[in-house]
Amino acid sequence: MHRIAARLDDRYELVAGAFSSDPDRARASALALHVHPDRAYGSFAEMAAQEAAREDRIDVVSVVTPNDSHVAICQAFLERGIPVICDKPLATTLDDARALREVVRASGLLFVLTHNYSGYPMVREARALVASGALGPVRVVQVEYAQDWLATDLEASGQKQAAWRTDPSRSGPAGSVGDIGTHAHHLARFVSGLRVESLLADLSSFVPGRRLDDDARVLLRFDGGARGTLWCSQVAVGHENGLRLRVFGEQGGLDWSQEHPNQLRLTRLGEAPRILHRGLGGLSEGAVRATRIPAGHPEGYLEGFAQLYADAADLLQGQGDPDGLPGIEDGVAGVAFIEAVVASSRAGGVWTAPDA
Amino acid sequence: MHRIAARLDDRYELVAGAFSSDPDRARASALALHVHPDRAYGSFAEMAAQEAAREDRIDVVSVVTPNDSHVAICQAFLERGIPVICDKPLATTLDDARALREVVRASGLLFVLTHNYSGYPMVREARALVASGALGPVRVVQVEYAQDWLATDLEASGQKQAAWRTDPSRSGPAGSVGDIGTHAHHLARFVSGLRVESLLADLSSFVPGRRLDDDARVLLRFDGGARGTLWCSQVAVGHENGLRLRVFGEQGGLDWSQEHPNQLRLTRLGEAPRILHRGLGGLSEGAVRATRIPAGHPEGYLEGFAQLYADAADLLQGQGDPDGLPGIEDGVAGVAFIEAVVASSRAGGVWTAPDA
Amino acid sequence: MHRIAARLDDRYELVAGAFSSDPDRARASALALHVHPDRAYGSFAEMAAQEAAREDRIDVVSVVTPNDSHVAICQAFLERGIPVICDKPLATTLDDARALREVVRASGLLFVLTHNYSGYPMVREARALVASGALGPVRVVQVEYAQDWLATDLEASGQKQAAWRTDPSRSGPAGSVGDIGTHAHHLARFVSGLRVESLLADLSSFVPGRRLDDDARVLLRFDGGARGTLWCSQVAVGHENGLRLRVFGEQGGLDWSQEHPNQLRLTRLGEAPRILHRGLGGLSEGAVRATRIPAGHPEGYLEGFAQLYADAADLLQGQGDPDGLPGIEDGVAGVAFIEAVVASSRAGGVWTAPDA
Amino acid sequence: MHRIAARLDDRYELVAGAFSSDPDRARASALALHVHPDRAYGSFAEMAAQEAAREDRIDVVSVVTPNDSHVAICQAFLERGIPVICDKPLATTLDDARALREVVRASGLLFVLTHNYSGYPMVREARALVASGALGPVRVVQVEYAQDWLATDLEASGQKQAAWRTDPSRSGPAGSVGDIGTHAHHLARFVSGLRVESLLADLSSFVPGRRLDDDARVLLRFDGGARGTLWCSQVAVGHENGLRLRVFGEQGGLDWSQEHPNQLRLTRLGEAPRILHRGLGGLSEGAVRATRIPAGHPEGYLEGFAQLYADAADLLQGQGDPDGLPGIEDGVAGVAFIEAVVASSRAGGVWTAPDA
Repeated sequence: MHRIAARLDDRYELVAGAFSSDPDRARASALALHVHPDRAYGSFAEMAAQEAAREDRIDVVSVVTPNDSHVAICQAFLERGIPVICDKPLATTLDDARALREVVRASGLLFVLTHNYSGYPMVREARALVASGALGPVRVVQVEYAQDWLATDLEASGQKQAAWRTDPSRSGPAGSVGDIGTHAHHLARFVSGLRVESLLADLSSFVPGRRLDDDARVLLRFDGGARGTLWCSQVAVGHENGLRLRVFGEQGGLDWSQEHPNQLRLTRLGEAPRILHRGLGGLSEGAVRATRIPAGHPEGYLEGFAQLYADAADLLQGQGDPDGLPGIEDGVAGVAFIEAVVASSRAGGVWTAPDA
Repeated sequence: MHRIAARLDDRYELVAGAFSSDPDRARASALALHVHPDRAYGSFAEMAAQEAAREDRIDVVSVVTPNDSHVAICQAFLERGIPVICDKPLATTLDDARALREVVRASGLLFVLTHNYSGYPMVREARALVASGALGPVRVVQVEYAQDWLATDLEASGQKQAAWRTDPSRSGPAGSVGDIGTHAHHLARFVSGLRVESLLADLSSFVPGRRLDDDARVLLRFDGGARGTLWCSQVAVGHENGLRLRVFGEQGGLDWSQEHPNQLRLTRLGEAPRILHRGLGGLSEGAVRATRIPAGHPEGYLEGFAQLYADAADLLQGQGDPDGLPGIEDGVAGVAFIEAVVASSRAGGVWTAPDA
Repeated sequence: MHRIAARLDDRYELVAGAFSSDPDRARASALALHVHPDRAYGSFAEMAAQEAAREDRIDVVSVVTPNDSHVAICQAFLERGIPVICDKPLATTLDDARALREVVRASGLLFVLTHNYSGYPMVREARALVASGALGPVRVVQVEYAQDWLATDLEASGQKQAAWRTDPSRSGPAGSVGDIGTHAHHLARFVSGLRVESLLADLSSFVPGRRLDDDARVLLRFDGGARGTLWCSQVAVGHENGLRLRVFGEQGGLDWSQEHPNQLRLTRLGEAPRILHRGLGGLSEGAVRATRIPAGHPEGYLEGFAQLYADAADLLQGQGDPDGLPGIEDGVAGVAFIEAVVASSRAGGVWTAPDA
Repeated sequence: MHRIAARLDDRYELVAGAFSSDPDRARASALALHVHPDRAYGSFAEMAAQEAAREDRIDVVSVVTPNDSHVAICQAFLERGIPVICDKPLATTLDDARALREVVRASGLLFVLTHNYSGYPMVREARALVASGALGPVRVVQVEYAQDWLATDLEASGQKQAAWRTDPSRSGPAGSVGDIGTHAHHLARFVSGLRVESLLADLSSFVPGRRLDDDARVLLRFDGGARGTLWCSQVAVGHENGLRLRVFGEQGGLDWSQEHPNQLRLTRLGEAPRILHRGLGGLSEGAVRATRIPAGHPEGYLEGFAQLYADAADLLQGQGDPDGLPGIEDGVAGVAFIEAVVASSRAGGVWTAPDA
């Protein structure tokens, strides 16, 4: 996914890599990807050290390893002066996340976290609409992320994606909350511009034997007084990748669904709902710069993902400053959210302040 | 609404009534509705007494007065042997609701509560599907009821519907929860067949000066282990009458929306979603008997409402026993739900068991 | 259907009738419908004669018999001074239709043809929008009416609705065109305000042994230069009652579907599409008067049908003049359309002017 | 678009090119695209000659020039042994198209025409369903392609895309029919597996001064007896890129819309409609191989387009034989379709057989 995303807008060339924790497999993979043998590294440590020493060193590294390895890897590159694009979630503990934040701050380097749904043009339009005051002060934020692929104990079959996501030792203390709830949390923050001040959570593990949550409902209180609900589930039969966000303000409401990402429903108080489309006239600068092809020709998930890479390329070349590009603060906020959700639920459902 | 609903299937004739709390206006209204002057009553008490004394007395009375008058009126008729169809919510306090339950039980008479959304054919199909085990054991119930007509302080303008609904002295302790939350609660119970064992609520009054909640989010725990969320709002700009229910079991999921009531989305685990339509072959007996016209010709809100009247007529004539027709127990459960929600929220969000 | 429609708004009482071509069954049916025995007639002729002689004679008669009997029945009542509400199509031949037009004109009486889809509020809104110039001059009209209930030779099973609709002796020379194509034709005319100047048709009978068309495609040229296509089918598997109209003008476009009749999509050139809803503010007078209940509570087919009856009641009481209520001219235009379609197709597809 | 499509799956490297008809601009563009100066050609002729002479010559050339230049360019490469991927339509006259077909046949080389909508997974699923007999024999094919970007005389503003598309000297004898009607025609053929035996067309130019059609309706008769309608329009206000195909057989029906390409509606006779999704289990091999990412993460236009490039790469490497990949026969059929449509309309609407 990351390779396609990086390639799509032709802003990146893959020139080096450490593609496995097993050195031999790492080198073999690199060669299969046409990486020069000199830059086919056996480990991230080797890669960081040697790339840092090259004149033609890499401009940026993508970290797409399991969650529990992000911090060490990011740190290795940042401390050698190499910017980072990192998969989410940032870390498996809040302490780790905060430690990495210190490293990023000290480095002064670009750090992008791939909360990819923020790359969709109509999500950026939604953010711009809220920021412009088109909805008035925000009152209510409803966000949900519903899937069904873990409705059975797929992990028992050895399916790789299911196995690590349901394993506390690799995923951290949260299952669905860490995997998809953090996306929902980030999307709500990205669009509303609000921070979760306090939350109250009720986690479930419906599939017998599962050790992490596969369904979670979270009451949200935002700074400034808005309220909301976050529901994420991996057992919601009939939902594939149902990420949906609704934001309601005093003067208007927004509705966006990831499965039909090119449309955004906007209702101004007392008016008929309008269906805004990617590519139409009158959209915000942020939506326009994330648009490649004319209206009516759907752009999808890969294009949204690619946008983060394109934005990072711009920043690396000093060409722009995309509004709200997810970074280290979003990463820390995401881990703080996970910890607060888990703590609230373990305490039987008490209001808990995520402490980023 | 009730008059249209009663008339639609030609099972009722309006022959008597007390149509206002003001005796003169009551009689004038009766005449305007072609009620015979002898049966144009000045008060419900007069009506109950005199109708009970007639040979050709009414078969049933409809109680469609403000919430706080339901109990006394229902009691007056039931105690004189006259069955009742009553608007929801049943009462403004749980004590009143329980007292009325005693009266109903003692009378042995038909008592129907017009939770009208249960009259939609595809809601009955949904109930039948769950009951048949088509979804397997239920895990998750998500229900919402979102409107936007109270996004401003409409009550300040003197609008009648807004005025009484936002007035604690007439509506009881809950606003949106009593008005629409109870519909959502009933729908969730009606379809899932489950009872809310415990709930945790967070109510808001977003419009300045409003004394009752206009937005509420409630975490639900059902008997048997299912979990759920109920969200109701009257400030969700862009929603008109957005009642939507989703039920997810181990083997399947359902999705139904009141604004497009003739369709029901059913997904069986591992299969493509199917769009069931009112009027198609293969539906349950309950859906079929609530259907008047062929598939593709939409039936709407009035037809759903009318179904409760038609069902009541059947029961009065000893002709059937429609599954789940809302009655006194649903009424008590609804008031218990309201009280629990208000109590939970006032306590800052604690798990509370509705005690019906 | 007609009885429900007449009853829904409480503007009619059923006091007389001839309910079968068999006199005994006619009288029995009347009694079952609580008609007084004196007015339970054995034939339409008897009914017309005797009702005309009564002081308390009927205000209007509904003619809901097979197509080939409309003319004689309507004539019998009109000539005795009794207004008529008649089912469509008006007649099975254009000569008959024209003859009836003479009778109507001579009588000076109300004559309503139940092209019921014109009773939907959002269809009336569409008509008002076009008439107001909101779309600019109309260029293109696309209308379709797709069903699938005749995808097999249902008539062979003896199903009554299928049997008479596929029998030329009872339906006239057209099958799907007469049954549903005329609805599509009327809807296109009603909304666009345009007349079909010329048409070219290609009819098919896909089901082996069927004697009338079950699928038809018709190219349309309207007065003033607009062009269009009409497709109707009864073998389009997956369509239940898919009547859809789109109208495109220089400045805007409209899209309406019968299966979700409470919405109307309006796009003004260069703007985002808006979803107009029945019951919202800002709609036309015609839409408002056809609306019973608040936005978000769907009204359906029966309510649309009822609207024609309510409008007729208004006219009979001198209370209004609903814009475009279908009458005798629409009936003649419909039969002329059928004849032109059949003639064009039989000639192998040549441009033919319907001659109303 | 073609460059993104070629890049997306990492099967191509851009190593040579002639990027303008102006030699200086061609070379400058090539350098901007990181093409080696030795292979930055001033003309297609130069490129064909020199590449053919290289040891490391290109594996395939993409021809994405104006329609009237396709034939000469394709010929230049094919005759030198270089396979071709060519934009549609193939040519501006049927004679040219047939001449090119001879060249392709003589060359024995791969020739792909980028009818890109056939690259969508659910379009391939639709084709596979029809081919498998899931619908039974096809009766009706309804296809439409509606846009609104030419609802005004955009060409007068100098907009480049509008200018050449409305200019007969560059587009050939058809406007909307050549630009989008051919896509609709190909899609209908691709999915139904049927050939248009005869057609009858009515073209319009609604925008004053426009010299080519901007709206066309075409009656279709397919081999084997199926009938259909094709409507394309560039003045349909409210439509962006509304390509929609419906296919109805004796046993089932399909419905697919380009603007939401990841879903396909399938109805089997007598069953509830199913919504098939890209990425779900049980889909055809053709759909699966055109799928990159899991269900629920939408793939869009670029991915569909990219699929043709990926398929071509497979064929060039001898790795597969994607069912129905558009080639020279589709190109000739498309041009024959255009000529027949124009001829039929000019003759006032007569049945005309496209003669591929």
